[in-house]
Amino acid sequence: MNTTSFFSDMLQSITDRGRRLLSLGPPQDDDDAVGSMEKLCETLLSSRGEASGMALAKGILDRWQALDQQDQRDFMVALLTRFGPNTDRLERAIEAYRTDPSPKALLELSEAAEPRRQELIRRLNLAPNGTATLVGMREVLLALKRDNPDLEAVDADFAHLFGSWFNRGFLMLRPISWSTPADILEKIIRYEAVHDIGGWDELRRRLAPEDRRCFAFFHPQLLDDPLIFVEVALTRDMPATISDLLSEDRTIIAAADATTAVFYSISNCQEGLRGISFGNFLIKQVVEDLRRELPRLDTFVTLSPVPGFADWLSHERRADVSDALTPADRAALAVLDEPDWADRPQARTSVEPALTTAAAWYFLRARNRNGKPLDPVARFHLGNGARLERINFLGDRSDRAMRQAHGLMVNYLYKLEDIETNHEAFASRGEVVAAPAVRRLVPADRGPRAPTAGGPAAKDGSYDAARRQGSKEFTS
Amino acid sequence: MNTTSFFSDMLQSITDRGRRLLSLGPPQDDDDAVGSMEKLCETLLSSRGEASGMALAKGILDRWQALDQQDQRDFMVALLTRFGPNTDRLERAIEAYRTDPSPKALLELSEAAEPRRQELIRRLNLAPNGTATLVGMREVLLALKRDNPDLEAVDADFAHLFGSWFNRGFLMLRPISWSTPADILEKIIRYEAVHDIGGWDELRRRLAPEDRRCFAFFHPQLLDDPLIFVEVALTRDMPATISDLLSEDRTIIAAADATTAVFYSISNCQEGLRGISFGNFLIKQVVEDLRRELPRLDTFVTLSPVPGFADWLSHERRADVSDALTPADRAALAVLDEPDWADRPQARTSVEPALTTAAAWYFLRARNRNGKPLDPVARFHLGNGARLERINFLGDRSDRAMRQAHGLMVNYLYKLEDIETNHEAFASRGEVVAAPAVRRLVPADRGPRAPTAGGPAAKDGSYDAARRQGSKEFTS
Amino acid sequence: MNTTSFFSDMLQSITDRGRRLLSLGPPQDDDDAVGSMEKLCETLLSSRGEASGMALAKGILDRWQALDQQDQRDFMVALLTRFGPNTDRLERAIEAYRTDPSPKALLELSEAAEPRRQELIRRLNLAPNGTATLVGMREVLLALKRDNPDLEAVDADFAHLFGSWFNRGFLMLRPISWSTPADILEKIIRYEAVHDIGGWDELRRRLAPEDRRCFAFFHPQLLDDPLIFVEVALTRDMPATISDLLSEDRTIIAAADATTAVFYSISNCQEGLRGISFGNFLIKQVVEDLRRELPRLDTFVTLSPVPGFADWLSHERRADVSDALTPADRAALAVLDEPDWADRPQARTSVEPALTTAAAWYFLRARNRNGKPLDPVARFHLGNGARLERINFLGDRSDRAMRQAHGLMVNYLYKLEDIETNHEAFASRGEVVAAPAVRRLVPADRGPRAPTAGGPAAKDGSYDAARRQGSKEFTS
Amino acid sequence: MNTTSFFSDMLQSITDRGRRLLSLGPPQDDDDAVGSMEKLCETLLSSRGEASGMALAKGILDRWQALDQQDQRDFMVALLTRFGPNTDRLERAIEAYRTDPSPKALLELSEAAEPRRQELIRRLNLAPNGTATLVGMREVLLALKRDNPDLEAVDADFAHLFGSWFNRGFLMLRPISWSTPADILEKIIRYEAVHDIGGWDELRRRLAPEDRRCFAFFHPQLLDDPLIFVEVALTRDMPATISDLLSEDRTIIAAADATTAVFYSISNCQEGLRGISFGNFLIKQVVEDLRRELPRLDTFVTLSPVPGFADWLSHERRADVSDALTPADRAALAVLDEPDWADRPQARTSVEPALTTAAAWYFLRARNRNGKPLDPVARFHLGNGARLERINFLGDRSDRAMRQAHGLMVNYLYKLEDIETNHEAFASRGEVVAAPAVRRLVPADRGPRAPTAGGPAAKDGSYDAARRQGSKEFTS
Repeated sequence: MNTTSFFSDMLQSITDRGRRLLSLGPPQDDDDAVGSMEKLCETLLSSRGEASGMALAKGILDRWQALDQQDQRDFMVALLTRFGPNTDRLERAIEAYRTDPSPKALLELSEAAEPRRQELIRRLNLAPNGTATLVGMREVLLALKRDNPDLEAVDADFAHLFGSWFNRGFLMLRPISWSTPADILEKIIRYEAVHDIGGWDELRRRLAPEDRRCFAFFHPQLLDDPLIFVEVALTRDMPATISDLLSEDRTIIAAADATTAVFYSISNCQEGLRGISFGNFLIKQVVEDLRRELPRLDTFVTLSPVPGFADWLSHERRADVSDALTPADRAALAVLDEPDWADRPQARTSVEPALTTAAAWYFLRARNRNGKPLDPVARFHLGNGARLERINFLGDRSDRAMRQAHGLMVNYLYKLEDIETNHEAFASRGEVVAAPAVRRLVPADRGPRAPTAGGPAAKDGSYDAARRQGSKEFTS
Repeated sequence: MNTTSFFSDMLQSITDRGRRLLSLGPPQDDDDAVGSMEKLCETLLSSRGEASGMALAKGILDRWQALDQQDQRDFMVALLTRFGPNTDRLERAIEAYRTDPSPKALLELSEAAEPRRQELIRRLNLAPNGTATLVGMREVLLALKRDNPDLEAVDADFAHLFGSWFNRGFLMLRPISWSTPADILEKIIRYEAVHDIGGWDELRRRLAPEDRRCFAFFHPQLLDDPLIFVEVALTRDMPATISDLLSEDRTIIAAADATTAVFYSISNCQEGLRGISFGNFLIKQVVEDLRRELPRLDTFVTLSPVPGFADWLSHERRADVSDALTPADRAALAVLDEPDWADRPQARTSVEPALTTAAAWYFLRARNRNGKPLDPVARFHLGNGARLERINFLGDRSDRAMRQAHGLMVNYLYKLEDIETNHEAFASRGEVVAAPAVRRLVPADRGPRAPTAGGPAAKDGSYDAARRQGSKEFTS
Repeated sequence: MNTTSFFSDMLQSITDRGRRLLSLGPPQDDDDAVGSMEKLCETLLSSRGEASGMALAKGILDRWQALDQQDQRDFMVALLTRFGPNTDRLERAIEAYRTDPSPKALLELSEAAEPRRQELIRRLNLAPNGTATLVGMREVLLALKRDNPDLEAVDADFAHLFGSWFNRGFLMLRPISWSTPADILEKIIRYEAVHDIGGWDELRRRLAPEDRRCFAFFHPQLLDDPLIFVEVALTRDMPATISDLLSEDRTIIAAADATTAVFYSISNCQEGLRGISFGNFLIKQVVEDLRRELPRLDTFVTLSPVPGFADWLSHERRADVSDALTPADRAALAVLDEPDWADRPQARTSVEPALTTAAAWYFLRARNRNGKPLDPVARFHLGNGARLERINFLGDRSDRAMRQAHGLMVNYLYKLEDIETNHEAFASRGEVVAAPAVRRLVPADRGPRAPTAGGPAAKDGSYDAARRQGSKEFTS
Repeated sequence: MNTTSFFSDMLQSITDRGRRLLSLGPPQDDDDAVGSMEKLCETLLSSRGEASGMALAKGILDRWQALDQQDQRDFMVALLTRFGPNTDRLERAIEAYRTDPSPKALLELSEAAEPRRQELIRRLNLAPNGTATLVGMREVLLALKRDNPDLEAVDADFAHLFGSWFNRGFLMLRPISWSTPADILEKIIRYEAVHDIGGWDELRRRLAPEDRRCFAFFHPQLLDDPLIFVEVALTRDMPATISDLLSEDRTIIAAADATTAVFYSISNCQEGLRGISFGNFLIKQVVEDLRRELPRLDTFVTLSPVPGFADWLSHERRADVSDALTPADRAALAVLDEPDWADRPQARTSVEPALTTAAAWYFLRARNRNGKPLDPVARFHLGNGARLERINFLGDRSDRAMRQAHGLMVNYLYKLEDIETNHEAFASRGEVVAAPAVRRLVPADRGPRAPTAGGPAAKDGSYDAARRQGSKEFTS
């Protein structure tokens, strides 16, 4: 694959334009930076001249970039308290609606209930590079929200607007290759969240060979910054280990000879877009594009990490009673506590059956408080309509994988004709669709089909931690 | 069709994508087309599978395209009544907010008050070509609204979403020239609203000579359809008549010799985007671009129609009392009732002073019920910060101009350094900034500075008619 | 003019560059324009500074553009006489070579024999837009050559260089569609040589429907000017008449339903590139591209004019003895002399068999002095490896077709797997490959297999005329 | 600077096209590979079918790629002996010309004297990627020529054709930036011939800062491979040392603040295009482009190596008599023989005057056998019309620079208004234009103005060696 033209000059003009704008002048030293920003925000909201609007928006965002952490928090609190709905107008609208719930009254109520910060954010987007700055602003907000739960209301407005702006209809799928501009490739190196890319030579090995592909979603307002990307290996078989795919001395095959496309890494790039979901579109569209380019491809499968497994297993092993583990399993799993067990063939042989069975239970039976599988990656792919296809013992011997999953990896299979059925089964009945070989690992007569409320998932925070760990990889 | 894309293949991919989607199948003959659409809309709103979401959205929009007028109305009414807010949830939210107006309660109230159709429209946008279809849907809605004022609430949601989607940050300014793709030029011919383009030869005369320019705004989702465009003539003087600019045998000058850029036609293209304002951005950005390309340009001016003048003048002449017209003026203006007065030198000479003075009054003193000038074109340019520079007697002798304005045209001057001041004077104080020569035409001691409420503008609908006539040209 | 470039800005930069060059100043009134050009040419040939070279080249080409016909001839004669080889050097090189035919002596001889004008033309190409001007210069030269056969030597040098510059490796195939820039479409209208395009509406009908295609070859130095183009109709059958393809009310079919691609018009655009052959590449590459886009296409066929037929037939009918025509044929063909015979069903019925048989003879047996078929279009397609597939009585009732071919059209079939064999048969043995149905029309026992020297083709100039007529359509 | 779109898809199509071609099949094991290639070449020359021509050309070039060194030589010898002119035809043409030197006879002589390999090379260019392979073929040929001087005749034909194909009119100047595709940047790293680029981080430092620029010439047939590139630093002063420009901790300035553009590295990329000169065009065009982008730039200057200086100086110091060096100079220069002299302040101080004076002599007085300066870099820039502006003592302390030039660097000044005059002075009178400060270093009364024939330059081969060393940097 060899795309050369990357972005049209038309799109470029969007960002170029900003350079010609007059600015408000640089922010000056200011004892009350947040206070002066609030005033500018009020001016922006009342401004009718749109040229001045752009200068104001730029001025506010420039000041934002210069704030320290404390001031950032204060500004967010100001968005919450000062730029909420106009409460007088809201009271009046409620009264009017209660008196006569006419369409007109409803409209007024709906408008009155909209926080003023929504319009403010919309106007801030007029600034050159505004969208990117606002995405960064939300990244800060998400971090602040942990200790300031009231900021949820502010985040809801960001999320609402981003949902419109990053509407799937605006996203552009682009192949990423060794002829992609270096400034974008640099970001691919930086954003890769699953299997680290050591540098430009390793990047080249992941992009240049003809049995490798990479695709990313872009947005017209963030032209040189991908939103999410997936790395793909073209193979003749469903791979069991990541080293099959990434070792330097592997044999490169002709793309036309491949029968299988392996999605071995999916990374979200913009923390500030968390919760704005693109991943499912990405995979389905890449499947379509690859099938058109390479009609011999008939299998589309992932090779995925299992980030929540080790935590869950540790919990089960420590629990007094576990449906998941028999006493024999517990005994066999003790070897996991020995360092370097994976280097000893005998230890490997002894632990494999119990570990694999426990993993099957983890996927098929363990549930979080929402009745969904504990594993965030599983939730993502199963929610997309994929099927859990195979559990791969010692699929990844990197430190991270040993720590998170005792080295396990799994394959999820994307079979286009089953995707909708699988998705429905999962979304409406919480059913985990898995290959027979996986299902057979869990005896039908053992343990509850789904955890009761207050089950292991609810007892401690470990699964939420796992989910957070996974959050760079998958929007939840 | 095999297109050689005007726009890069990257953008093209947005629309291509749609072709590969499975459809719901074509809409079938259906006794209750609207009823079945409503069901599909409910399914789309509850759908979690985004692939099925795209197919559903496509299915609904395909059905919409096939509706007759009556069914279109019924569907809009369904949007109003069935897809408003969930009233139970809204009631609960109001209760909770009244009990404790916490940020959380406010957030819930704001979300509960949002009509469900907003999310529905957002999801309909997933369909291939969804944005264009939704813009067309609003065009129908605007027409229906006249007889169904309750639909205003539905329109508010369209306008709200379009405001986000067509955020100025997403617009792309593109020069339109004789090397622009023919399918886009075809639309320029069709959309031209001010001075008709008779065919391809005339279009060529407006685009190809080096002293002609044209610019349009495009949106990434409507790639081959301009939103608004402006035609520009490069000249050595501020022109007084449109034939100076458009006559076939005019002398073409070198672009580098021009000192003046004349905006002689601005046309909005998408009726469905009425009220989503781009024109002011367009002119200011074109001014910037031209200055960079041709540093000798020092004057930026329009040659504009006066669409509301003849109606207003007729009203004043019929009125028993008019501040605007002296008895001598009335007598002089009587010649306007004779057909072909403009062909007779004597008649022209006799009517010119009174007509020009009346026009000055029309611009400087006459006001609509909102305290703004009556003329929609004047409101647009003055609102942008331009100055009324000159009134041109018999500037346009086309049938339309004779009928609407007794042939008058005016120049509005865009002086970058004054734009913000002018805009503020107009926006906050309703002040019409005009050149001294224009101001001098209206004696300071004559008539009220601004009409009282219930003044001529309020008496009949003629000014609204004028505004409507102008609506293809200017967003109000 | 501000162009929105059809072609990338990279390519545009080639021509832009020229605008920034300093010129020699405009050519002044000059009693001896050609004499001063000769001096400039000598200076250019001796120039070592390449910046001055560009200015000189521009100066010479600017002067060329201003010459009248007589001066153009004089300049060409100067190229012949003054810018031939250096004869002293040539004499010495001949001596040296005769003394010792070493590689070195051969090299010197080869270089000494090269006319100086070759290097001159090469340097003239440095001027902005040089290639286009030189192509135009050769167009003039080709016309002058008719009366000045010595200029053949000058033309040989142009042809030699154009052969290098327009090497097939530099040509770019581009689809032409309704979204192609208007300035290129304008040229398609102008250059169409086979079936006139009446205006933009007719052009739209040939480009916009999904069962229509057009492709052109471009060269990086002539970016907005096609070299040759072909118009294609996608159909379900091999068409017999041009009105099947071009009538306004025909039924448009889905591209995906087509089984047949019909090349119904091929036009060379640059008279100055006559003899530099692109047409055969064009057809083969278009076949490849269409097959990839539309895999259901299985038949690639032309619908072609027969420009030499009427002249030949008239000659045969007037001849005392004709192998081609029996007395019965002659009698039947007499109806052709009646005006409007084609409107009378009976006349059509009576003439069809004799006319079709004569046409088969014309293609299969008649030969020019080089042993090739008389028809220039036949030579082109048969030389490309196509097969003469069908003769279509009254395939084209336009005035031109009635005059040139009594309305006949033919189909040539391009069957990829037979192309090389057919080409070899034609090129080495002069064999015309035709479908059995065509071959059966000519009784095997009638007349000579190929004309003897001095046969009809040599007797008068009519066939050369035919070839000239065809020359805009096909490079010979 | 931030170009995003790099190459248009139109150009891409040129290379894509090749992938769809049928091949002759892979070359088989062949005892007589060269013999079979010769046969294919004969077939290609006699081929009339251009589709078969492409397959034949591809077959021959594929076989060439597989040849070992010995066979490569044999093939080149075959091109010399077997594919020269047809000697019989040539003899006849000579006879005819001697009998009657008519234009026709001259044309025939010129054509007969053209080696058949010219047409062969032209046809080989039909193969996909043909131009690139032929450029590589000439790279081999240039190496072989050293031991096989007869191959000069073959090289003359390659050079002749490359001169046409790489005509300056076809070259495209492109900025190279950090958003250039990685596969092209990779080549910039590889081809940099003056100041090595250590890896991607260093490349980023040379491209990404806003006071850095890089430009390259590309050719449509070698789209992803630059021909020549220049690296530029934007500064406030003319730099004296390379570390001023390349040190990691230098201060980056705003591009708009720069007054000086420094060309600090020019690298030819294609050894196979040696002698096809682009460098002078490159610099002049980059000067033009930079002036347009940054109007404050008023000084265009190089910081250049002096690759021949140390060799020449060593020769002078060893000579019994030297016009260039006084006995005092010789004594002072003795310190150069001590290792690490440059680290000792006293040594530096003592040697600087003599070394700088010697360098001035080297540039101003020393001449090679052609009467040109000895230094290849000086010949290049002076030949372009630059002026020798300043000699910088210890401008570059890298091993290479210490070895080649005792650390000296020089600045050449490009002053647009003087370029043509300077060039003429240099080209016609061999005059070296230098700044007064440089000229004053050489006493007017000392030594000959220009070396006599057989002077130092002719005595040994060291200057040719210097020129060869410089050959990657400058076409000679």
